[in-house]
Amino acid sequence: MIVGEVVGNIWATRKEEGLTGLKFLVVQPDSSFSSFSPSTFVAVDRIGAGVGDKVMVTNGSSASRIDNVQLPIDSLIIGIVDSVEVERGEGNG
Amino acid sequence: MIVGEVVGNIWATRKEEGLTGLKFLVVQPDSSFSSFSPSTFVAVDRIGAGVGDKVMVTNGSSASRIDNVQLPIDSLIIGIVDSVEVERGEGNG
Amino acid sequence: MIVGEVVGNIWATRKEEGLTGLKFLVVQPDSSFSSFSPSTFVAVDRIGAGVGDKVMVTNGSSASRIDNVQLPIDSLIIGIVDSVEVERGEGNG
Amino acid sequence: MIVGEVVGNIWATRKEEGLTGLKFLVVQPDSSFSSFSPSTFVAVDRIGAGVGDKVMVTNGSSASRIDNVQLPIDSLIIGIVDSVEVERGEGNG
Amino acid sequence: MIVGEVVGNIWATRKEEGLTGLKFLVVQPDSSFSSFSPSTFVAVDRIGAGVGDKVMVTNGSSASRIDNVQLPIDSLIIGIVDSVEVERGEGNG
Repeated sequence: MIVGEVVGNIWATRKEEGLTGLKFLVVQPDSSFSSFSPSTFVAVDRIGAGVGDKVMVTNGSSASRIDNVQLPIDSLIIGIVDSVEVERGEGNG
Repeated sequence: MIVGEVVGNIWATRKEEGLTGLKFLVVQPDSSFSSFSPSTFVAVDRIGAGVGDKVMVTNGSSASRIDNVQLPIDSLIIGIVDSVEVERGEGNG
Repeated sequence: MIVGEVVGNIWATRKEEGLTGLKFLVVQPDSSFSSFSPSTFVAVDRIGAGVGDKVMVTNGSSASRIDNVQLPIDSLIIGIVDSVEVERGEGNG
Repeated sequence: MIVGEVVGNIWATRKEEGLTGLKFLVVQPDSSFSSFSPSTFVAVDRIGAGVGDKVMVTNGSSASRIDNVQLPIDSLIIGIVDSVEVERGEGNG
Repeated sequence: MIVGEVVGNIWATRKEEGLTGLKFLVVQPDSSFSSFSPSTFVAVDRIGAGVGDKVMVTNGSSASRIDNVQLPIDSLIIGIVDSVEVERGEGNG
């Protein structure tokens, strides 16, 4: 997963079936997590994230199954980040 | 998902089974959304997008299930964008 | 999907089960479509493509289901391109 | 798979269903294995990895099936590395 | 698929369930096939590849189904290359 910040919203009235009612947010990857998507991308949100939130995002077809239905989406916000703790450690944590 | 503009069409008479009748469009990713595909790529369209339209595109195997049939495609236009609103916000939207 | 040119063949006698009899071609992505694979890669072909042909290629696990059997392949030639028309248009096509 | 080092932890109280109780670690890819993710990313851990451990990580939807349940995650720590032996050899090992 | 050379082995005693007994090899992508993974990565081998062998590798979840069991792996050696023939041709092969 990558970490990013919600920076906006995107609307599309004409959509593929099954996508009506879903919320599409624009996410800017956190610079240290920018491996998969250095620039902004669109993710579906179902847990109430909003602009300014730091979020954890799953990409690829892992993101496509919602309530046991396969949807044509490839990016899903899976968590609103409380905190990230990055350190160097010796041996098993 | 990424956002891009439809810039053309592509035709292929000889195709894998199950792909006849599908519309293949050439999409140029929007520069701020160019993470996954900095250069043009081909996406299937079923919602009536055309050249000049700003579209939302799902990539990868999330794009391969159409009307419950698994097809050998890896890119599907899922929305014609009405508007994108990008801002910086404080805390939860 | 991306567009590329078939530039060669590759042979491997010792292979994973289920892959015997499949044709493996070397594909060079078209420079304007080089997003997913800037350099050459190997794709399975079942529609009679050959060296010099311009082809449309599906990558990832969308490519892995052939005749309803899941195979360990991640790239499949899905079309032999007749023509590509790239233009700029205003509004819906 | 890629190899990396666990460099931290990440917490998110508000999460997608089914993710409660999972441990999310921050992984820095090993420089020689940085192909898929040159910068840090988040992976789920179920085998007791901790900060400082060298780990093997599976990315993409291969990582999304845990105890036969499909979860919206795209990165899973699958091994704690004992040793890596890289050499040049002639012919079949 | 990409082509690469087996350059080493990697061992991990503590692993996710279902991975015991699998052989993990370190693969260096062939420079002309380096699109998907410019640097080394780890692939599972079941067909007897060894250090120095030129191999064909499937990446992503196409690699995750072995003997009809879904495993958390994203890279599988699918062939030991006999020969690669890259040329420019006119029209259909």
